[in-house]
Amino acid sequence: MKTQDLLNYARGEWIAGTGDRPQLVSAIDGAPVATTGSGGIDFGAMLDHARTVGGPALRAMTFHERAHMVKGLGLAILAAKEELYALNYLTGATRKDGWIDIEGGAGTMLSISSKARRELPDAHVLLDGAVEPLSKSGSFIGQHIYTSLQGAAVMINAFNFPVWGMLEKLAPALVAGVPAIVKPASSTAYLTEAAVRVMIDSGLLPDGALQLIVGGVGDLFDHLTGQDMVSFTGSAATARKLRSHPSIARESVRFVAEQDSLNSAILGPDAAPGTPEFDLFVAEVVNEITVKAGQKCTAIRRAIIPAAYLDAAQDAIAGALEAKTVGDPRDKASGMGALVSCAQRDDVRAQIAKLVASGARVVSGDPAAATGPEGGAFMPPVLLRADDPWAATAIHDIEAFGPVATIMPYDDIADAVALANRGMGSLALSMFTHDPQAARDFVVGAAAYHGRMLVINRDNARESTGHGSPLPVLVHGGPGRAGGSEELGGTRAVKHYMQRTAIQSTPAMIAAISEQYVPDAPKHFVDTHPFRKRMRDLNIGDTLKTASRTVTIADIEHFAEFTGDNFYAHMDEEAAKASPIFEGRVAHGYLILSFAAGLFVDPDPGPVLANTGLENLRFLTPLYPDDAMRVELTVRSKSLKSDDEGVVKWAVEIFNQKDELVATYDLLTQNEA
Amino acid sequence: MKTQDLLNYARGEWIAGTGDRPQLVSAIDGAPVATTGSGGIDFGAMLDHARTVGGPALRAMTFHERAHMVKGLGLAILAAKEELYALNYLTGATRKDGWIDIEGGAGTMLSISSKARRELPDAHVLLDGAVEPLSKSGSFIGQHIYTSLQGAAVMINAFNFPVWGMLEKLAPALVAGVPAIVKPASSTAYLTEAAVRVMIDSGLLPDGALQLIVGGVGDLFDHLTGQDMVSFTGSAATARKLRSHPSIARESVRFVAEQDSLNSAILGPDAAPGTPEFDLFVAEVVNEITVKAGQKCTAIRRAIIPAAYLDAAQDAIAGALEAKTVGDPRDKASGMGALVSCAQRDDVRAQIAKLVASGARVVSGDPAAATGPEGGAFMPPVLLRADDPWAATAIHDIEAFGPVATIMPYDDIADAVALANRGMGSLALSMFTHDPQAARDFVVGAAAYHGRMLVINRDNARESTGHGSPLPVLVHGGPGRAGGSEELGGTRAVKHYMQRTAIQSTPAMIAAISEQYVPDAPKHFVDTHPFRKRMRDLNIGDTLKTASRTVTIADIEHFAEFTGDNFYAHMDEEAAKASPIFEGRVAHGYLILSFAAGLFVDPDPGPVLANTGLENLRFLTPLYPDDAMRVELTVRSKSLKSDDEGVVKWAVEIFNQKDELVATYDLLTQNEA
Repeated sequence: MKTQDLLNYARGEWIAGTGDRPQLVSAIDGAPVATTGSGGIDFGAMLDHARTVGGPALRAMTFHERAHMVKGLGLAILAAKEELYALNYLTGATRKDGWIDIEGGAGTMLSISSKARRELPDAHVLLDGAVEPLSKSGSFIGQHIYTSLQGAAVMINAFNFPVWGMLEKLAPALVAGVPAIVKPASSTAYLTEAAVRVMIDSGLLPDGALQLIVGGVGDLFDHLTGQDMVSFTGSAATARKLRSHPSIARESVRFVAEQDSLNSAILGPDAAPGTPEFDLFVAEVVNEITVKAGQKCTAIRRAIIPAAYLDAAQDAIAGALEAKTVGDPRDKASGMGALVSCAQRDDVRAQIAKLVASGARVVSGDPAAATGPEGGAFMPPVLLRADDPWAATAIHDIEAFGPVATIMPYDDIADAVALANRGMGSLALSMFTHDPQAARDFVVGAAAYHGRMLVINRDNARESTGHGSPLPVLVHGGPGRAGGSEELGGTRAVKHYMQRTAIQSTPAMIAAISEQYVPDAPKHFVDTHPFRKRMRDLNIGDTLKTASRTVTIADIEHFAEFTGDNFYAHMDEEAAKASPIFEGRVAHGYLILSFAAGLFVDPDPGPVLANTGLENLRFLTPLYPDDAMRVELTVRSKSLKSDDEGVVKWAVEIFNQKDELVATYDLLTQNEA
Repeated sequence: MKTQDLLNYARGEWIAGTGDRPQLVSAIDGAPVATTGSGGIDFGAMLDHARTVGGPALRAMTFHERAHMVKGLGLAILAAKEELYALNYLTGATRKDGWIDIEGGAGTMLSISSKARRELPDAHVLLDGAVEPLSKSGSFIGQHIYTSLQGAAVMINAFNFPVWGMLEKLAPALVAGVPAIVKPASSTAYLTEAAVRVMIDSGLLPDGALQLIVGGVGDLFDHLTGQDMVSFTGSAATARKLRSHPSIARESVRFVAEQDSLNSAILGPDAAPGTPEFDLFVAEVVNEITVKAGQKCTAIRRAIIPAAYLDAAQDAIAGALEAKTVGDPRDKASGMGALVSCAQRDDVRAQIAKLVASGARVVSGDPAAATGPEGGAFMPPVLLRADDPWAATAIHDIEAFGPVATIMPYDDIADAVALANRGMGSLALSMFTHDPQAARDFVVGAAAYHGRMLVINRDNARESTGHGSPLPVLVHGGPGRAGGSEELGGTRAVKHYMQRTAIQSTPAMIAAISEQYVPDAPKHFVDTHPFRKRMRDLNIGDTLKTASRTVTIADIEHFAEFTGDNFYAHMDEEAAKASPIFEGRVAHGYLILSFAAGLFVDPDPGPVLANTGLENLRFLTPLYPDDAMRVELTVRSKSLKSDDEGVVKWAVEIFNQKDELVATYDLLTQNEA
């Protein structure tokens, strides 16, 4: 393979860095792969380009438009996956390892895009929570909104997931309307650069939405402001250095970090050898040691085992590890590939030495063994054991970022919680138990220290996605040592790139700002029934005012007989009067809903296809016999789900003859676009 | 008044600091008030006490139990308010100023308590969002939960709100189950100490839940971990220093800061002299300059005015300021009291000099004037004007923390947005306009830079709580210069003191961990109808399985005729078949709901008082004529609202004869306890 000169993508152009150009080599055999560098790049100008060109272009789009773009980018990555797999091998990773990175990265984009289209409005402003009443007569209300940050998201990624690491940050930033500047770790930057090229070449991104730095970031941090954001994945030492940059504290720059993590797996007290949970535990520990040669921020580093089962677990894990073939990742027979570089392997060996010095001993695998092709960064998986896990403190503090884990015994659930928490914050923890009480005690005791916790057993193992896999719909990140941050989590991730602001004003102003109808905002009473209009012709605030209908005691009795609902409040005058709520018999809530539909429904087939649901129903004033009811049906918001179809949310308000609110709810209908 | 020796409250005891004891003096006349100090205190032991005694005691309580305790503390403060008002005057504040601090602080506790009881479960674990399906057959699902941080919340407060500043942080921390260590600013620490004494003496707090440091924090920060949290209110310089402490970056300690903020008020382009909005704007600017002698982190520092109205606005504001009486805050005639100290006044004068040097000029008030009693920290309100606000950069960067604001002109909305955002992040902004389009353009353009924005006009001014008042139900905090943090915001504030964790497991395990029924978790089928049981006797997961009922075409036609709902999907076989959703006529959704109630309702008066609402209704499978339906009604969660009453949330699942889910929803009932 010809050595490639990696380029930066800055201000819409591919630019070679000048000056010193370090050489990147293959993890398999040390052969040169590429040179890289970012000398001569004007980092301040890149930030300006993101803020003044990329940001405004993204903010002019709606959440849905941006989500469609992100879906397109994910599909473009998938279409180019074989080109990326070819480069993936050079990082030491097997095809299975690369699947997580490449197809997992693209899948994360598709998932974030899909969640955004389902859960976010087709608008520019996102509401947070309900209207807060702030005054008696309702002229002054509060509403929290999210708007896009107006700076750039600087994404600094680790060497181990050159594609996924970028895409899991990029997808939510773009959906949020925030442009990105990506800086991959040098050693695998050639794979990130290839993926960036695929996205730029797709033509889907507005200018300034994505830039790339393939070398150092120079003075970039000096130019950061409070509208920018840094998302970092890498070592705790680097995180500490970056986080301590004067600009970060001075400008209160959001700093998201995924850093070291001494993740743990717990074998439940019920999971003796011979149980399905014991076998599942052993398989997962082995898997986590060997996938990506253990170079995963979520990998299991500490296996915490009931003292009585420690020997059996050790035998089973060691046996499975020793059966793994370590070798060229291009060879399908290889169960584990190479580390990313010989320097990384040297570092892992040095960390193992510290673990041993602290009181752990190697019980499987020779850290010094040379395996695999000449010049490659190979080593066998290594299992350590610490019989006194409270004395061997390094096992909770030092992360050997390679195929390495330590097994240790615990006494009872409280001891297991304490050992798990002794890691001072982790990204992922798994517990293997079939006992709900043990699971509850453990999880409630330990959750504050861990970002993601799995409870795995015979009932879910077949469908489990495993200890080490961050999922796009769940938050990824952990407290303390793990960085104290969150990424992913479905649309939670989008909000990380937005600012929450509390707005206080009249309902009319809140409706204008939020692009949604809110209660008490002005309504636009329409003559044409809104069920006769296509979605695109419906305006927020359009309101149908229905005729009035009197509800008689005969209606109530008939409804009770028809449905079988003879609840005392409807059928027993004395009992209803005696209740603390009613002054006498009242109409059924479902009778009111049913009559309301009778009042507002337009029967003919047309743009409204079906009533698909209802939310936030509250009965506010009882409806007594001979009271009248009428409905105001208002377009609250609308959201396209495809070119042909979408969902309209209607605010339904049912009034009595005194114009008191009887009930309110949000009605959902499936509509033709 | 006798000089008082302020005490620390550490590890359950009131302890005098040893060594150097600085003297605190009255803002009114410089007379000695108290001595203070924290020499000799073991700060590491205080943290340990919070973690090992206070935290476990608080975490053993439910959200509701803790919220009740917080309500009790607020009531205790109110009962002791006159004692606190007496001390309040010594800080230079009028009674009106003190009302915000003392009664506003207690009210914040009551509000947070009330929100928590309404919105949080009576449990230990808080769910975040819905179940995330992670597998096809549903054996592996995700659920985010919040659990209490297991460290201490260190609260460092500013001199200006010695009571509110503590309570607005303390209330959510306690509701979250996190113990607090409070460190007030020295100059007004005597008022904080008095308020802490009231709370400790109430006997409501478990040991270790609240500790107090009345002097420096010594080596406290060296002992912080990722389970602790720092909430800081004060200057940007101090925030920067604290945030840069090595422990903060090393341990990823959550650091919440409310710091400098060049808050602005915008006069809308429509708000010419003579309009109500012009007068409201003038009154609010004057108010914000003089309340608390302008020593408020939310005070208006920059008044941004259409160029054409600048002179008129200046005349009106200056006239009103000059009419204010500055003097002894105990005197009811004083419209403005003293600054907190002569040193603070000197600092304000120095900042004014910098504003003037940058291009602003004083147009009302003499910064050097001596007003009020001898020895007191008095100065008149000062209005500055900057005719070229883009040249006079200091007006956007330097906060004179006293009765000082600068007026400046703008050209158009885009210019006003740019000027407001030039403050690089603020806590509060108000815009005075009656034009929804102007409001929308301004708010959407500026929201990313501001934590709270008010749009005030003739329609809401009477009920508005004003520019400067953080409200407990709305977030308080702002990006960038303002600190990049959030406090308050109702139950959002509680989550600031908790850790979010993604849990992955079976429905059964998720139900056990979350203390709630979740779909597909095991049900406990009961013989006694659950409507016959009092709340305390209902168990999560108790399920009533109803009989089955066939829905006939006659039922559908009868329901249509009875309610008037003749929607095509129910009444027109051809049109229903032609729709993309249905295979023929289907039962009305409300008919299904009504029949479901008929199947599960137990008619007699009893513990279930009323159906109060319904949430998350989704119709999943159409019900065709001659299909049968049956219901499973399961206790999902329960929450006491008082000793006598509460709300039960029921999971309702409607199945057809093939056991397919026809509809699901959550039913809310009001129950006797």
